[in-house]
Amino acid sequence: MRPLLLFYVLYLVCVCLGVLCVAFVSYWNHHWRGGFAWDGSGLQFNWHPVLMVTGLVVLYGNAAVLYRIPLTWGQNKLPWKLLHAVLMFMALIMSIVGLCAVFDFHNKGGTPNVYSLHSWLGISTVVLFTAQWALGLGVFLLPYSPVELRKLVKPVHVWMGSAIFILSIVSCISGINEKLFFSLKGGSNVTKPYSALPPEAVFANSLGVLIVAFGLVVLKILSNQTWERPEAGQVDGSSRPLLHDEN
Amino acid sequence: MRPLLLFYVLYLVCVCLGVLCVAFVSYWNHHWRGGFAWDGSGLQFNWHPVLMVTGLVVLYGNAAVLYRIPLTWGQNKLPWKLLHAVLMFMALIMSIVGLCAVFDFHNKGGTPNVYSLHSWLGISTVVLFTAQWALGLGVFLLPYSPVELRKLVKPVHVWMGSAIFILSIVSCISGINEKLFFSLKGGSNVTKPYSALPPEAVFANSLGVLIVAFGLVVLKILSNQTWERPEAGQVDGSSRPLLHDEN
Repeated sequence: MRPLLLFYVLYLVCVCLGVLCVAFVSYWNHHWRGGFAWDGSGLQFNWHPVLMVTGLVVLYGNAAVLYRIPLTWGQNKLPWKLLHAVLMFMALIMSIVGLCAVFDFHNKGGTPNVYSLHSWLGISTVVLFTAQWALGLGVFLLPYSPVELRKLVKPVHVWMGSAIFILSIVSCISGINEKLFFSLKGGSNVTKPYSALPPEAVFANSLGVLIVAFGLVVLKILSNQTWERPEAGQVDGSSRPLLHDEN
Repeated sequence: MRPLLLFYVLYLVCVCLGVLCVAFVSYWNHHWRGGFAWDGSGLQFNWHPVLMVTGLVVLYGNAAVLYRIPLTWGQNKLPWKLLHAVLMFMALIMSIVGLCAVFDFHNKGGTPNVYSLHSWLGISTVVLFTAQWALGLGVFLLPYSPVELRKLVKPVHVWMGSAIFILSIVSCISGINEKLFFSLKGGSNVTKPYSALPPEAVFANSLGVLIVAFGLVVLKILSNQTWERPEAGQVDGSSRPLLHDEN
């Protein structure tokens, strides 16, 4: 298959899987977990998986592959850079609100915070993401940043971006697994235990599989060098950006 | 830092983190979980995390970065290819025995198999790994395989290798998280609950952090193009292998 066609096929798969992830995590929490509220109850907790999957996985993944779209290569980079920064900022805000949802729920119920491996990795992911976004803003978006600094930081920014994305996948999967063990204890007429694989378990496990598939497609797009945006000078000169924004 | 020096620093970090992962998972199960047996009891289960972390993560990761060691580039590729295949085979056998340990434990205790998201992803990882190893043997090691086929399959093999590795990290982290919730229920004099972060919880959470760190270092080494083994013809002619083994 030609590289350009392969890119767009993979990109379409990426967008479809992302939409499915958001639909699955929303339906799971709406239909089986009782829906949403912001009152310190279990309904407030339900915002946590929805916001983390939507922000930290789907929005983040889509923002990461933005520069890889060949249609954008002939255009000024600045608007795409701004879109990348805005989408990442929305992902960051959703992640922070998602953390607030679970902290608030724990605090109101007297449950300790940040003890599980899931929480250690999840918190690390959001802290690293915050640092990455702030560094990205300072180095790549503000116009006074020297070109040499941008060139130096770019590979670190790109690598950290993938590392944070992998961490977010790991955090989401361990969180969904943990949540299903907590929720599907059985012993009542309402819920069968997780081990009996009731429809909710099959559905939420499938959400996990979709998240991993989405993650692998995003990482596949990011890893292919032929889909990297050409540096300034490699494309037609007229497309050179107005600011120092090629790195 | 010069690329070669950076490689060896990262490789040293990779080896040290790998040794720490094996030491941590073994000590956790020996010291806190009662040690090992093959009798269908919880002591048989303890083989599961040890074999999965040692085989599917540490041995697999080290086998994956083997070709990246610049010291090997001037040498015939065949012995390194054989070592890659043998290490991967050992990793596969350990993973399969690790699965047998948990299936046997479940079956003797009347616990259902393969219902959690952890188990779905873990099983998929080992199935894909088995297919990858068999394909690798047929395409890259057996001498009758045509060079054109090797060239076609190589990028798929490399990409699948990273994807399986990421899947194995996700499976291990969700498994450790799940195991700690199962084991540290509290309510006795012997164990405090997971939420009170007893020493075992801190230790096993740290194992999880080490596994993720090891994974990110391995993926960093694999992602750097300057550390890819040069193709035949790019290095000194005398290093050309005896068989069609440059792909």
